[in-house]
Amino acid sequence: MQAQVQNPGKPAASNVRRAAFPSILPDNSVAFRVHAPNAQKVQIDLGRKYDLVKKDGGFWEGTTDPQSEGFHYYSLVIDDVAVCDPSSETYFGMSRMASGIEIPYPAGTNQFYIADVPHGDVRMKRFFSKTSNEWRRMYVYTPPGYDTSGKKYPVLYIQHGGGEDERGWAEQGRTDIILDNLIANKQAVPMLVVMSDGNTQDFESELLNDCIPFVEKNFRVKADRVNRVLAGLSMGGIQTLNTGIAHPELFSSLGVFSSGWFANASPMTSNMDNPEKYYTMLKEKKDLYNRQFNHFWLSMGGKEDIAYNNCQVMMKRFDEIGIKYTYYEYPGGHTWPVWRESLYRFAQLLFK
Amino acid sequence: MQAQVQNPGKPAASNVRRAAFPSILPDNSVAFRVHAPNAQKVQIDLGRKYDLVKKDGGFWEGTTDPQSEGFHYYSLVIDDVAVCDPSSETYFGMSRMASGIEIPYPAGTNQFYIADVPHGDVRMKRFFSKTSNEWRRMYVYTPPGYDTSGKKYPVLYIQHGGGEDERGWAEQGRTDIILDNLIANKQAVPMLVVMSDGNTQDFESELLNDCIPFVEKNFRVKADRVNRVLAGLSMGGIQTLNTGIAHPELFSSLGVFSSGWFANASPMTSNMDNPEKYYTMLKEKKDLYNRQFNHFWLSMGGKEDIAYNNCQVMMKRFDEIGIKYTYYEYPGGHTWPVWRESLYRFAQLLFK
Repeated sequence: MQAQVQNPGKPAASNVRRAAFPSILPDNSVAFRVHAPNAQKVQIDLGRKYDLVKKDGGFWEGTTDPQSEGFHYYSLVIDDVAVCDPSSETYFGMSRMASGIEIPYPAGTNQFYIADVPHGDVRMKRFFSKTSNEWRRMYVYTPPGYDTSGKKYPVLYIQHGGGEDERGWAEQGRTDIILDNLIANKQAVPMLVVMSDGNTQDFESELLNDCIPFVEKNFRVKADRVNRVLAGLSMGGIQTLNTGIAHPELFSSLGVFSSGWFANASPMTSNMDNPEKYYTMLKEKKDLYNRQFNHFWLSMGGKEDIAYNNCQVMMKRFDEIGIKYTYYEYPGGHTWPVWRESLYRFAQLLFK
Repeated sequence: MQAQVQNPGKPAASNVRRAAFPSILPDNSVAFRVHAPNAQKVQIDLGRKYDLVKKDGGFWEGTTDPQSEGFHYYSLVIDDVAVCDPSSETYFGMSRMASGIEIPYPAGTNQFYIADVPHGDVRMKRFFSKTSNEWRRMYVYTPPGYDTSGKKYPVLYIQHGGGEDERGWAEQGRTDIILDNLIANKQAVPMLVVMSDGNTQDFESELLNDCIPFVEKNFRVKADRVNRVLAGLSMGGIQTLNTGIAHPELFSSLGVFSSGWFANASPMTSNMDNPEKYYTMLKEKKDLYNRQFNHFWLSMGGKEDIAYNNCQVMMKRFDEIGIKYTYYEYPGGHTWPVWRESLYRFAQLLFK
């Protein structure tokens, strides 16, 4: 019934088939129209909440402020219950299936759109984790030509954030599209990208004893430190820091997106969250780390990123110790557009 | 906050992490508990609607009748708006992302559960469809050993139902688990299963001119009629009938699950829905069809399946013409447990 209404913009690319709303206006504000004749209150939560207004026929309507480019989670809120919008695709985020909206990138920003170039695969792989004692799933990007080249490839292991899972980098992150485009343009070397599920009690053990051995057994990969890189966003960035610093013998670069050890850790902070043991390692083997990591790459979504302060404090500690790193800022806060951009830039540095 | 409540059963396997409800009781009834302090009415729609009752703390609770085994779509209904339940995984069905609940199978029904056997992959493949003039996606199951065997494999092309897409057979259908188990037990021969997106204006052209050539170019498959089979459920069953009968030179078996041409087609019925031209083909080349199709296999979810009557009328016409087929009934109506069982049985017949 939505399609009969005059639509002020264009349906979002993230809408399900035939859903006219949410609709993106030329200034990237978003018009919503929801049928809820018996609700008392209908809102859209896009980081800030917008009240929709009840109109004829039981429809609630409203338009947001202009939104920034790329992918954003959102919720439809019906009488204070936050749920997925039936008009949109869903994505695992916020520890539940959540709605997402794709805001167009500015003209010329082609790296995040599917193009007429060779395409790799994203494979869903089931594996049994001895660490977690359960069947788990990883998504693995294999580059164009993988099936027939007979070659071995380097591997980027990349982790999602808190409340997300192995689907995050493939769906929200558009990892395959970003890599396909980079490889076609010879901006990145062909590589595998392993997107595993970081929701586990012991990330380091599962990565080292389950994920990496599984990948190195089941794919044609170069199974050495030089050809193995670890990266992650937010919670996955902390997992990357903890595991990467504890095992410089395993990884040749680290990518830490919108993250940083907790600045205010105390002796009471949990083991995962207390960085002091890692700072001690860095101090004791400063030269080793500076030699081992070709790229110790930190990115941040600007001052509005919730991890900004943690990262600033961490970099100050790195400076004091003498650890080399690269810091890159891209506006957008703690959001997927920043992480897509981070992957786009980080992948270009690797295995060269 | 749900986890603190005493839980009368076990969280459904289809719940998101850490969601205690929906919870499955020993008799396969399902307890729901939803936090919605400001809603006026909260219901669960599982084919029939159940009213939840408001309890302390803004929680709404209720328990359904015992549910049948396997996967069922459902909706959370808040003040008459049907949405996904934030506690559950979502699945594209009903032309939107929908909740689903996995009811345990009886003991000994192991064919639908992941087991310690070799596992194939499900690959997400992007391809450009000239027929639809857009980038589309298919899911392709490759059997265990595909990467390294150097062998060529037969292919089952299988279609989802109305309101679903290429994800249906992989997620709701558990195609990879069913095939992994069948292949490990030597009940089915290793094969590829291509799950394409049937939401297109011209299914036959897209299958024949885009999907099949793409698969035969990009995978090691036996590209001949004997090693190519078409199947589908509901809408996908009609697509299978239409395309399979129009092209007996292309397929060696057909599988039609919970489907059948419309019994009450009239001259005004759309081209896709009017079967008379296909009945005419069958009459004119009865012997050819009986010779070409090793298996013309029809399955139905019993009398409660919405396609039951269409299928009965169709089989009567087949009998009158003298077309050979096999009919298999499995109770459960027009639902995924019936289609999983159909794939499980049909796959065992193929390429032998």
